Amino acid sequence: KDTYSVTLLPGDGIGPEITAATKVALEALTTKCGFTIELKEALIGGAAIDEKNDPFPQESLDQCLGSDSVLLACIGGYKWDNNPRELRPESGLLKMRKEMGLFANLRPAKVLPQLIDASTLKREVVEGVDVMVVRELTGDVYFGTPKGIDVIDGQRVGYNNMIYSESEIDRIARVAGDVASKRGGKLCSVDKANVLDVSQLWRDVVTQVITDDFKDVELSHMYVDNAAMQLIRWPKQFDTIVCGNIFGDILSDEASMLVGSLGMLPSASIGESGPGVFEPCHGSAPDIAGEDKANPLAMILSAAMMLKYDLDRPAEAQMLEDAVEAVLDQGIRTPDIKQEGDGCKLVGCKEMGQAVADVV
Amino acid sequence: KDTYSVTLLPGDGIGPEITAATKVALEALTTKCGFTIELKEALIGGAAIDEKNDPFPQESLDQCLGSDSVLLACIGGYKWDNNPRELRPESGLLKMRKEMGLFANLRPAKVLPQLIDASTLKREVVEGVDVMVVRELTGDVYFGTPKGIDVIDGQRVGYNNMIYSESEIDRIARVAGDVASKRGGKLCSVDKANVLDVSQLWRDVVTQVITDDFKDVELSHMYVDNAAMQLIRWPKQFDTIVCGNIFGDILSDEASMLVGSLGMLPSASIGESGPGVFEPCHGSAPDIAGEDKANPLAMILSAAMMLKYDLDRPAEAQMLEDAVEAVLDQGIRTPDIKQEGDGCKLVGCKEMGQAVADVV
Ligand SMILES: CC(C)[C@H](C(=O)O)[C@@H](O)C(=O)O
Ligand SMILES: CC(C)[C@H](C(=O)O)[C@@H](O)C(=O)O
Repeated sequence: KDTYSVTLLPGDGIGPEITAATKVALEALTTKCGFTIELKEALIGGAAIDEKNDPFPQESLDQCLGSDSVLLACIGGYKWDNNPRELRPESGLLKMRKEMGLFANLRPAKVLPQLIDASTLKREVVEGVDVMVVRELTGDVYFGTPKGIDVIDGQRVGYNNMIYSESEIDRIARVAGDVASKRGGKLCSVDKANVLDVSQLWRDVVTQVITDDFKDVELSHMYVDNAAMQLIRWPKQFDTIVCGNIFGDILSDEASMLVGSLGMLPSASIGESGPGVFEPCHGSAPDIAGEDKANPLAMILSAAMMLKYDLDRPAEAQMLEDAVEAVLDQGIRTPDIKQEGDGCKLVGCKEMGQAVADVV
Repeated sequence: KDTYSVTLLPGDGIGPEITAATKVALEALTTKCGFTIELKEALIGGAAIDEKNDPFPQESLDQCLGSDSVLLACIGGYKWDNNPRELRPESGLLKMRKEMGLFANLRPAKVLPQLIDASTLKREVVEGVDVMVVRELTGDVYFGTPKGIDVIDGQRVGYNNMIYSESEIDRIARVAGDVASKRGGKLCSVDKANVLDVSQLWRDVVTQVITDDFKDVELSHMYVDNAAMQLIRWPKQFDTIVCGNIFGDILSDEASMLVGSLGMLPSASIGESGPGVFEPCHGSAPDIAGEDKANPLAMILSAAMMLKYDLDRPAEAQMLEDAVEAVLDQGIRTPDIKQEGDGCKLVGCKEMGQAVADVV
């Protein structure tokens, strides 16, 4: 196959800018390698609310499902912050994950030698850190029912159900086992099994799946509070981490801080079959939107993950990653990764995209 | 009042050693200041399981409730790790919190200049950090029902209810407002209101309580994933943080890592009225138990919190805290806070307790 269809979701804030820069880099790659990616845009988030009064309209979903893969920039902004929850950009994201069956979220946090000083942690602590957080993405307290805010005995009570079924845990454990076996072979499952029933089931099922079917993977378990500490105390102890949706939300963001800049971090959300969604970990940074100051590298690295996981082009994925590293080696920096006195060249979003295109 | 009754819960692992060292320091203080603390021990955790087959027997609860305050060392150990949940040490802790109505957990994370290099974060990032996490302790997914592991449609399903009532949120918000107004006057409430109904109620109630009744407190809100990042990115932005039980479990442990050593961190768990429970944040460290290597300072600082919050002896609390700082200034260190080449004197648990007693 040498022609792929990809849905582009530029979203809000800096989304359109980083999308444009990513397109430039991707086109340089496909031209050089002799294959075609047909990019077609669709609406999500605030942009979709403004135009369609729905943060993820049916036509966007249909288009995504009909593509080989989906590349998403970022969503959200002050403008929609006070909307009712179903008319908030985040709800579009949650709907997309659920409707597309994207139950596995892969979030690598790899410290690049060029940017090591961007971390607030000491050099010797983060040097060489390469952690992959595998987060379950369509279950847990995010989607559990019953949920709501009721009046009980004259006062309001809010509740959400933290719930996992065996099959949900089983399938994420298999993804994590697979990821771990292709990486360092070490998997740490994070839960709160000393307190929660749902975590007890989580631990039992993960243990069974990994011991039975991933004999080359070394499995350990850690409580979530301890994991939050250990990520700071000695992050190099981790290779692959697997956890439920809410613990994964917290820990993957915490892990991203080891790297220092969110502007460098990609993610992949994948399902059993069908297209995945690839997106940077950062938000839509409405404060700098339209100023050509955003860092497109996280989205470009997300495109690399797309090439690897959805388009089955691992060599081309590697080329794109190498191009990003080469640009960093050249000392080219957007404001978010520029350090005072580093002697590097400050560029905007557009120029950064072009720089990657130039060396691809 | 010049005679107080305090229940001592030495617990497991290093618990008895740090309890002994704390007693020595406390006795020096009370002798010097001319008041009396009558200490009486009771069982909790693994020790209670071994003797009474119950991690927090009724007689321990009764004794605690009949005291002016409770000082707890630490619980747990490999020995009981595979027990059924109701026979695990942690269950004793949870039962104690619930039965004694200890709904507010205060966990200060203050970076001491003497130990600043113990942190894995850069000096300029942690210098001067002084964060107080106010964690709700008797609600949330920890105690919510329904909960369990059921078989539904032929597969196991595990669930716990993340639930808060208005009155539960109201009372913890008041404690947090009070704490914040006595500190830097800034309160950051952490939730996941973009996804969870229970967090939406949390946010509404906290906002109402603080705006209505703590006009001097500046309130902000942060999503829990962002808070996990910001604690590492720029911890000095925080003064007082308030959150629910599970988010507080994670964030308070994360915050403790800013300080570098868990061996220095005290905590207070308090209720509407009645005795509170004061305990170090660290665990029972079974690997070094009985070797006179443990750091008793977190428990000594917990005793200082007890003097302040339960025994209404703020001046004496300050004396004990000053004594701890003086000992650090003298360059006396237990193994956990000793840095290579720091020129400090290495001491054991017993000697550390005596050193504090000597300068109190
Ligand atoms: C925006 C929000 C709903 C979302 C989440 O909590 O999953 C985000 O934090 C993320 O991690 O992708
Ligand atoms: C031991 C465990 C049940 C407990 C908790 O989760 O509350 C502990 O982590 C703590 O923070 O005191």
